[in-house]
Amino acid sequence: MLAILKEKKGPGVTLKEVPVSETPKGEVKVKVIYASICGTDVGIYDWTPWVAEKLTPPIIIGHEVVGEIIEINGQAPRLKKGDIVSSETHIFDNTCYQCRINNRHICENVQFFGYGRNGGFSEYATIPIHTTWKNDSRIPLEAMSVQEPLGNSVNVITKAGVAGKKVLIMGLGPTGLCAGMVAKVYGASEVVGLNRREYRRKLAKQIGFDRVLETLPEKEYGTFDVVCEMSGNIDTIQIALNAARIAGKIIAFGTPKKNVEFDWGVLINKEITIESVFGRRIWETWYQTSDLLISGKIDLRKIITHRFKLAEFEKAMGVMKSGECGKIMLIP
Amino acid sequence: MLAILKEKKGPGVTLKEVPVSETPKGEVKVKVIYASICGTDVGIYDWTPWVAEKLTPPIIIGHEVVGEIIEINGQAPRLKKGDIVSSETHIFDNTCYQCRINNRHICENVQFFGYGRNGGFSEYATIPIHTTWKNDSRIPLEAMSVQEPLGNSVNVITKAGVAGKKVLIMGLGPTGLCAGMVAKVYGASEVVGLNRREYRRKLAKQIGFDRVLETLPEKEYGTFDVVCEMSGNIDTIQIALNAARIAGKIIAFGTPKKNVEFDWGVLINKEITIESVFGRRIWETWYQTSDLLISGKIDLRKIITHRFKLAEFEKAMGVMKSGECGKIMLIP
Amino acid sequence: MLAILKEKKGPGVTLKEVPVSETPKGEVKVKVIYASICGTDVGIYDWTPWVAEKLTPPIIIGHEVVGEIIEINGQAPRLKKGDIVSSETHIFDNTCYQCRINNRHICENVQFFGYGRNGGFSEYATIPIHTTWKNDSRIPLEAMSVQEPLGNSVNVITKAGVAGKKVLIMGLGPTGLCAGMVAKVYGASEVVGLNRREYRRKLAKQIGFDRVLETLPEKEYGTFDVVCEMSGNIDTIQIALNAARIAGKIIAFGTPKKNVEFDWGVLINKEITIESVFGRRIWETWYQTSDLLISGKIDLRKIITHRFKLAEFEKAMGVMKSGECGKIMLIP
Amino acid sequence: MLAILKEKKGPGVTLKEVPVSETPKGEVKVKVIYASICGTDVGIYDWTPWVAEKLTPPIIIGHEVVGEIIEINGQAPRLKKGDIVSSETHIFDNTCYQCRINNRHICENVQFFGYGRNGGFSEYATIPIHTTWKNDSRIPLEAMSVQEPLGNSVNVITKAGVAGKKVLIMGLGPTGLCAGMVAKVYGASEVVGLNRREYRRKLAKQIGFDRVLETLPEKEYGTFDVVCEMSGNIDTIQIALNAARIAGKIIAFGTPKKNVEFDWGVLINKEITIESVFGRRIWETWYQTSDLLISGKIDLRKIITHRFKLAEFEKAMGVMKSGECGKIMLIP
Repeated sequence: MLAILKEKKGPGVTLKEVPVSETPKGEVKVKVIYASICGTDVGIYDWTPWVAEKLTPPIIIGHEVVGEIIEINGQAPRLKKGDIVSSETHIFDNTCYQCRINNRHICENVQFFGYGRNGGFSEYATIPIHTTWKNDSRIPLEAMSVQEPLGNSVNVITKAGVAGKKVLIMGLGPTGLCAGMVAKVYGASEVVGLNRREYRRKLAKQIGFDRVLETLPEKEYGTFDVVCEMSGNIDTIQIALNAARIAGKIIAFGTPKKNVEFDWGVLINKEITIESVFGRRIWETWYQTSDLLISGKIDLRKIITHRFKLAEFEKAMGVMKSGECGKIMLIP
Repeated sequence: MLAILKEKKGPGVTLKEVPVSETPKGEVKVKVIYASICGTDVGIYDWTPWVAEKLTPPIIIGHEVVGEIIEINGQAPRLKKGDIVSSETHIFDNTCYQCRINNRHICENVQFFGYGRNGGFSEYATIPIHTTWKNDSRIPLEAMSVQEPLGNSVNVITKAGVAGKKVLIMGLGPTGLCAGMVAKVYGASEVVGLNRREYRRKLAKQIGFDRVLETLPEKEYGTFDVVCEMSGNIDTIQIALNAARIAGKIIAFGTPKKNVEFDWGVLINKEITIESVFGRRIWETWYQTSDLLISGKIDLRKIITHRFKLAEFEKAMGVMKSGECGKIMLIP
Repeated sequence: MLAILKEKKGPGVTLKEVPVSETPKGEVKVKVIYASICGTDVGIYDWTPWVAEKLTPPIIIGHEVVGEIIEINGQAPRLKKGDIVSSETHIFDNTCYQCRINNRHICENVQFFGYGRNGGFSEYATIPIHTTWKNDSRIPLEAMSVQEPLGNSVNVITKAGVAGKKVLIMGLGPTGLCAGMVAKVYGASEVVGLNRREYRRKLAKQIGFDRVLETLPEKEYGTFDVVCEMSGNIDTIQIALNAARIAGKIIAFGTPKKNVEFDWGVLINKEITIESVFGRRIWETWYQTSDLLISGKIDLRKIITHRFKLAEFEKAMGVMKSGECGKIMLIP
Repeated sequence: MLAILKEKKGPGVTLKEVPVSETPKGEVKVKVIYASICGTDVGIYDWTPWVAEKLTPPIIIGHEVVGEIIEINGQAPRLKKGDIVSSETHIFDNTCYQCRINNRHICENVQFFGYGRNGGFSEYATIPIHTTWKNDSRIPLEAMSVQEPLGNSVNVITKAGVAGKKVLIMGLGPTGLCAGMVAKVYGASEVVGLNRREYRRKLAKQIGFDRVLETLPEKEYGTFDVVCEMSGNIDTIQIALNAARIAGKIIAFGTPKKNVEFDWGVLINKEITIESVFGRRIWETWYQTSDLLISGKIDLRKIITHRFKLAEFEKAMGVMKSGECGKIMLIP
């Protein structure tokens, strides 16, 4: 089968025919229907220090996928052949302290689908039974693949608690765009997007953001009840603190590549709360996400801007890096 | 009367005989019984940028006080002459948005007793009726003065929610020491103090900390459910993040003089929450604080290490700056 | 001026010309523009035991009003003549424990506008300065009067936390209808209304409820994340417990006239939480309510079904008691 | 082996020699060291309607146990032969909605150790691997058996949030007694016990309750921040509502045998919250409970008043029913 591999340490990937692997005990094998590219995949491509620490080649990359189960190896009372399933990226061990106190998504020994082990940018993939999510057939097939990043946004907005609140979304990549959509559905009084790139601001406006800004004007300082930091830029933390209202809340989601530097005193003087989101609550967030998609309140196709064949991966990565895109789909 | 004044911009203070001022409309006049020195008073003495921004000389400094009401100018249904009262430092305006939504302690137009206007390092002082707290007579007189910083610690520990939790207190000045005592009363499973100064660690041990540390050993990384940052050092934020457990909580209280720099990614990878405390909830925290003192569960005299006459202020400030002290009392 | 009075103990009211009263110290006088009838007013009319306990005649009744300030007697930094204002019904004393710990709406010595003292079913009314809410001019005038009951619903739905949740509203009087509208705006996944009266169910459907039911079928037992009890019927508590999902939440708002009886074990077996709402948070709820009306997300005119002159009060009360109505407005 | 069986429907139990059963797949076999009698066991003995609904004879009863693992049948990475373990009574299925959203203790298909299937009043017992708790060896052996009811109290007090609060414990059976001990450790300002039986009040006083009452005097109405209903009496709900302060919290734990009847209006007028507890959070509560026992802050031996051989079960049940006891231990 065709697969996108990180074959050795360093930048770049390899497109290659590889044998379809056996289905390990406790896993299912799926025929991949759609996959989608995540910002993390760019880091994997570029071989950032964060990736270098977590990824041991050779590995099939890709963690946002939807596929059809063609084989089950082990006890799986909720699954059967033919089910259309997605994968939760955080493979939890179910035995550590965090798993046992119901924080499985921040498992102390978490392994990552698609960068800690083989993922899904390939014609076939295997997924652990306990991180396999069975999809509701009313959800559009493409959306099923993008459900994992949407889940991040659902968790961000749920933790934020936006009903009746004025919300700033910093960074308008796919998770930022999704966060804005979810904030609208969950009753935010106003949702404002912030991004330096015009393409992204336009897209945000189209999908329902109330306003978009290139930079935050000083007159808006201290006016946001909630600020969602989804960009991972190092200079946005100070802006987030400035934007937040007294007693406001910041949600940290984007991971910067370097240390951040800012005035900690602002945090205290305004008595701001920072909550952070590492991923989706397992499985609370998935149920919420699924409901939003079934109801049609969130239509993920609005942010899917490009579709490529798996063999066109390099081209897709090029568009991804240009920033002139929403979510990019891969079709095996 | 004798008073400690910041007479002009720049370092230092002036001890001076000044006339006893009139009691403004809406205020009470008290004969000061005790006052105590706060870390902020050191900043006022040294004329730090933060102070330079907030303080317009000439001003009588000092905000931790207890006194007896000798005059009331205005409607004060809860007060009468002879009452022994303390002052809430945050003079709220009761008309801004934050006051109206029950966050009076972070009033948008807050004025500060003892650095935004005349305070209490003097024989007589006037306090707004609406920020005057009537003390319960069962509380030791000295403790009444130190109730305001204890209140900070009570709010820190209440926000932290320490029952059954392992707690690290970073910085063992009076608020750090108080935070440790409150954490013990409120059911922390273990309270560990961190300070570079041996004097402070010894004092912490005496008053009930389970353990004290000079530096945090790597083996304790990721083991604290709650980390209270009470030092205001710029390099402790990274240590706080390292110390905190996955899904742990950091309480930000100490205000550093410069920007902090740290790895924001740790925050996200561990899904840590940061809550911050600007002062005492008005009046929730005061009721809680008062209860702790009435019951005898907290004995503030254990952290009072020095007592000076008001006229010995320079000497007191010297001890304060040496760091070889707990709380320092001033007696007018 | 014309006023609706409870002149003596017992059922009924009196329409009567009375002199316009002086404006007491600390109050404003308003020319009433609109008033609206509340379920409590029916109890006042009928002289229920609850009312008999709280109301000492003679009193001008009516607590939902909007008017224009024509006189101010006292300090009122936020108000001026010509302001269009509404009244918060709960006149708090600002000195009791609950007021001091920021629960002013449940003041220990609360007095009620329109049944603990003169209210607003009259051409002119006086309102305490500290319970006067200045309206934003973008809100439709009629809605300003209905803002107080809408506030109850906003507080109910805010406490419930409905984002992504399946919600049952029991009782489709004006507060139930409002609760449904707010639940939709704040992101409930489905809002179902329950009422025996067809008129009310039809109205609910028109204003956006997803579904309405005459009785709760057994197959829906255990399926609601949130149940809002807005009817005050004694037999609905057991139905609420049956309707709620395991780990669900019930919001108690409607006050039954007699004791309720139910199986407390269901509460425990399902680990249900019951939160209750006595009124609007002062002023958090008012800000939220105002935002919903300014934005146009809630249009209260949709539930206003009848308009009467003040002199037609008896006719209005007749319609009110028939149950074939939404909100009924009175025009002085 | 000797076992206590409910052999057939109706009151009473049978002491009988039965063969030691095989260890089913996915379970461990333990040699029971101690067992303890729960209030539920009285209901089982008496064959109450609640029990009649859940229990299909023949079954070995008893769910509070500690034993040594002598056989493991299945994957159990955290367990090995010789481990001293206790049993979580709620056998969750790990596949229902509640299990998947991290509420395993209120599993939709929960099965009960010792009344939904064979339990532990016998010389040997088998426990599902996934509900087996491995004990810390520093905990006294007897306490390990009583850890399960203590866990209920830990969850009650944790949900209540008692730091600095005045707490009323209604019902001073073993869980009520434990709740009082935990409330003291977790920082309650005052813990008051309520029980009609002098024996129980005396025991409560000995183990650290601040005060005990036979009935609640009217002057204490409205003074408790937290009321824990641990008695299961039908007439205590109204008393709980009377006892609670405005904005107070009631924790529902005790399950009455009949419908309760009370004034729902009090709930609303005081804006009281009722939270309920069905059992221990799995495994959060167990970690907390274990910490309390390891630290010695809770010494369960203080409430163990009687010890009987398993063969003396009828005698033990007699004492249990007399109410003149704390916790009763059984020794196989």
